[in-house]
Amino acid sequence: MLQAGQLVMLVSPKGKRYFRVLDPEDTLHTHDGKLDLADVLNRGFGATVNTHLGRPYSILLPTLYDLIKGIKRHTQIMYPKDIGYALMRLGIGPGKRVIEAGSGSGGMTMALAWSVGDQGCVFSYDRREEFSELCSKNLEWAGLASRVEWFNRDIKEGFLQTDVDALFLDVRTPWDYLEQAAAAMSPGAPIGFLLPTTNQVQDLLMALEEAPFGDVEVLEILLRKYKVNGERFRPDDRMVAHTGFLIFARKNGE
Amino acid sequence: MLQAGQLVMLVSPKGKRYFRVLDPEDTLHTHDGKLDLADVLNRGFGATVNTHLGRPYSILLPTLYDLIKGIKRHTQIMYPKDIGYALMRLGIGPGKRVIEAGSGSGGMTMALAWSVGDQGCVFSYDRREEFSELCSKNLEWAGLASRVEWFNRDIKEGFLQTDVDALFLDVRTPWDYLEQAAAAMSPGAPIGFLLPTTNQVQDLLMALEEAPFGDVEVLEILLRKYKVNGERFRPDDRMVAHTGFLIFARKNGE
Amino acid sequence: MLQAGQLVMLVSPKGKRYFRVLDPEDTLHTHDGKLDLADVLNRGFGATVNTHLGRPYSILLPTLYDLIKGIKRHTQIMYPKDIGYALMRLGIGPGKRVIEAGSGSGGMTMALAWSVGDQGCVFSYDRREEFSELCSKNLEWAGLASRVEWFNRDIKEGFLQTDVDALFLDVRTPWDYLEQAAAAMSPGAPIGFLLPTTNQVQDLLMALEEAPFGDVEVLEILLRKYKVNGERFRPDDRMVAHTGFLIFARKNGE
Amino acid sequence: MLQAGQLVMLVSPKGKRYFRVLDPEDTLHTHDGKLDLADVLNRGFGATVNTHLGRPYSILLPTLYDLIKGIKRHTQIMYPKDIGYALMRLGIGPGKRVIEAGSGSGGMTMALAWSVGDQGCVFSYDRREEFSELCSKNLEWAGLASRVEWFNRDIKEGFLQTDVDALFLDVRTPWDYLEQAAAAMSPGAPIGFLLPTTNQVQDLLMALEEAPFGDVEVLEILLRKYKVNGERFRPDDRMVAHTGFLIFARKNGE
Repeated sequence: MLQAGQLVMLVSPKGKRYFRVLDPEDTLHTHDGKLDLADVLNRGFGATVNTHLGRPYSILLPTLYDLIKGIKRHTQIMYPKDIGYALMRLGIGPGKRVIEAGSGSGGMTMALAWSVGDQGCVFSYDRREEFSELCSKNLEWAGLASRVEWFNRDIKEGFLQTDVDALFLDVRTPWDYLEQAAAAMSPGAPIGFLLPTTNQVQDLLMALEEAPFGDVEVLEILLRKYKVNGERFRPDDRMVAHTGFLIFARKNGE
Repeated sequence: MLQAGQLVMLVSPKGKRYFRVLDPEDTLHTHDGKLDLADVLNRGFGATVNTHLGRPYSILLPTLYDLIKGIKRHTQIMYPKDIGYALMRLGIGPGKRVIEAGSGSGGMTMALAWSVGDQGCVFSYDRREEFSELCSKNLEWAGLASRVEWFNRDIKEGFLQTDVDALFLDVRTPWDYLEQAAAAMSPGAPIGFLLPTTNQVQDLLMALEEAPFGDVEVLEILLRKYKVNGERFRPDDRMVAHTGFLIFARKNGE
Repeated sequence: MLQAGQLVMLVSPKGKRYFRVLDPEDTLHTHDGKLDLADVLNRGFGATVNTHLGRPYSILLPTLYDLIKGIKRHTQIMYPKDIGYALMRLGIGPGKRVIEAGSGSGGMTMALAWSVGDQGCVFSYDRREEFSELCSKNLEWAGLASRVEWFNRDIKEGFLQTDVDALFLDVRTPWDYLEQAAAAMSPGAPIGFLLPTTNQVQDLLMALEEAPFGDVEVLEILLRKYKVNGERFRPDDRMVAHTGFLIFARKNGE
Repeated sequence: MLQAGQLVMLVSPKGKRYFRVLDPEDTLHTHDGKLDLADVLNRGFGATVNTHLGRPYSILLPTLYDLIKGIKRHTQIMYPKDIGYALMRLGIGPGKRVIEAGSGSGGMTMALAWSVGDQGCVFSYDRREEFSELCSKNLEWAGLASRVEWFNRDIKEGFLQTDVDALFLDVRTPWDYLEQAAAAMSPGAPIGFLLPTTNQVQDLLMALEEAPFGDVEVLEILLRKYKVNGERFRPDDRMVAHTGFLIFARKNGE
């Protein structure tokens, strides 16, 4: 079932995750010993394969969640808790055409590309060349690059698309680009923002009042994990306290 | 651009939402006056249409979030905050085949059907006939029914599919159906659960230890909204404190 | 054990709370029937007394928590979750001399008066006469008025005390009164603030940088209640999402 | 103003805290150089004193919050967020007589002793001798030991006091000691518990139904800190996710 060139996730007995694009000549070196990728290829998803020291590794098909956790990053990436909610609010799904500005390391890009399917398209903008490159490599690795077009340009000059179904503006001063965003979007289409500080949210809210957007909502999402123990069930001791504020709005009609 | 039979969302000046399947003979009665759907059909998405009292209503294409908020329900439905995260953890995306047990009013069913696209398929089980019907009507309404197959049977007797990519088990005593679930799933595939009480989570965790599942995680998601006011920015006074605990695991390999 | 003039809390079978200053001539009218306060006086704390319809009411000595929940209010009062923490951070305890500005309805005043004991003193400032009066009536009712001195004046003109052990500044623009606060405080003494919006917190933090205060901390406290059911244990459906941000600092030494 | 034998808190330029009982012969060794305690004694609270390398240290009177943060501990101590709230719910204040079982390292003991003043009394029980000793040393250090009586005995055999105003039962299986607690408490008096797991809370709730207690409440408190930066205001990246569930009840009347 598996083929050379496919991305697999290998999980150690202790839960450590390794990602590999299958090359039958290649070997994975782990703390538990060596693993021949040729063996992995012969076994298939869901199967177990042993290292030369006899430790069993699971061969898994990565979910979107796994992919996002596994990407190479230069900066903090968006968290799954925020991505999952944003996809719903932005109406992302098979066949949609969506712009993302501020690709970063490509966590959100990957989620968008995963969700729009082969019929959809993601237009990803980042002024910083090193990010466009990193992001594009990450998408290549996940096998999703064909669904993304990269634009290494300053969005102050506008976006090259029109009538997109949704736009996600993940930049430091989004209030500077609201006109450009509106010009690229279909009337009534949703827009999303992620901002770390309250000062930025305040500035954005005031700018949105003057811009052709309505139906504004601001929120934050907290995720608390629990210890996996049915006899002593309780939350973890510590948690992430803040990633950012999510802001959603819709472009006004004509 | 719009066609008879299409689902539109009409938003009042105060933000109230109405959903209608377009019938040019039909009229929407609102607190702001009457609205001819023929006018809506002629205007198109993103446009504005006036009631007979001159109040402007926006014509919008509903996002997945809007659809879930808009469905007819008999029971509490899953919240978008939980659905968005579950979709990611379960690896739902275009082309996936997924089982859902405990369809309820169809909130999660709608999200699954939206995400798997025309190439994917949702197999939705509910023992209670009135729920299968309601759920199926809601999917019809959203134009997503062609992606769902309904099964009105007791899952104690097993699922009719094998090798599905993911399974979501939203029932009161999920520990009673773990073997049946495992039998239907592809090795390594993810499974998800939603449970309101800690007693249930404890029972499930203990049952999972004996069942062919690993990589268990338990968590809860809190969403806090903020007042949309850049000059007096602060959280809302009240929020939802609990919907349920989310539990994820993966079927073991062979 | 009970005496005329004492404050008692009477709790109905359903948990409804009534507060009364004991007057043996007086009668309490409830949904469960009439209750003669003479009977209450004869029974004592912890006892039960029946209404004329035979419904049992508990006679309880109110805790500080009960008193705060029970006061007459014109405005939102501080929540126990915030008060309890502030008392600790401000080092309030028996014998302390503390200033409060912005008495409001007297929730915090009551907590301060309770904690400083007969050897301590609370100096409570509010520019608005109706609040000083309400607050003073509430303290009278709780039997704590002898520990409080009221000042109905504009704190822009300064406080009348010096070398106080702590100061709580619960006003809308605290940054306007930092010099006055510092002049009244003992070196090294703690100061606290409660502010609802992030804009206010930002303004205060910037003002504190220029003022003779250090060791600044900002935080918020969330309290989530659970359903009292050991067999179906889970959080309540809804909770208070925001009361205010708490800010603490210390006056610099010389 | 300062005297030999008094406890002072010395705060470094970077905010590090040192506690010392003043002995004019003693020297404090810090990363910033040496500090003669004789100098500290001569300067007084709120003043600044220099190390032999010229770094300024503030001399502060510790608040209850500082004391609790500063105690020597063998186990996790209660957090100020939980202690502050519990003090209010238990009606602790000057002159109260209160029992604590499960002294641990003495965090709660210190808070109770601080709050009851010289007219009140804390009766602190711990079966484990090493904890009674540690706890008693910590109270000595804080100058509060005269308000506490220590009992190194198994509470299964009952408490030695009667008619106490409040009781705090911080043990692993509190349901084993409800009768003993009730026997020691004044009718109507409040009782508090702190438990880390939901399994324990469930067991306690079921036991309380059979015991002479009513008015039960369960809750948890979350505290989120913010970065002290008015121009980039935002929550800290991480926070404490769980300390324990707080349970409160009241002893029934007669």
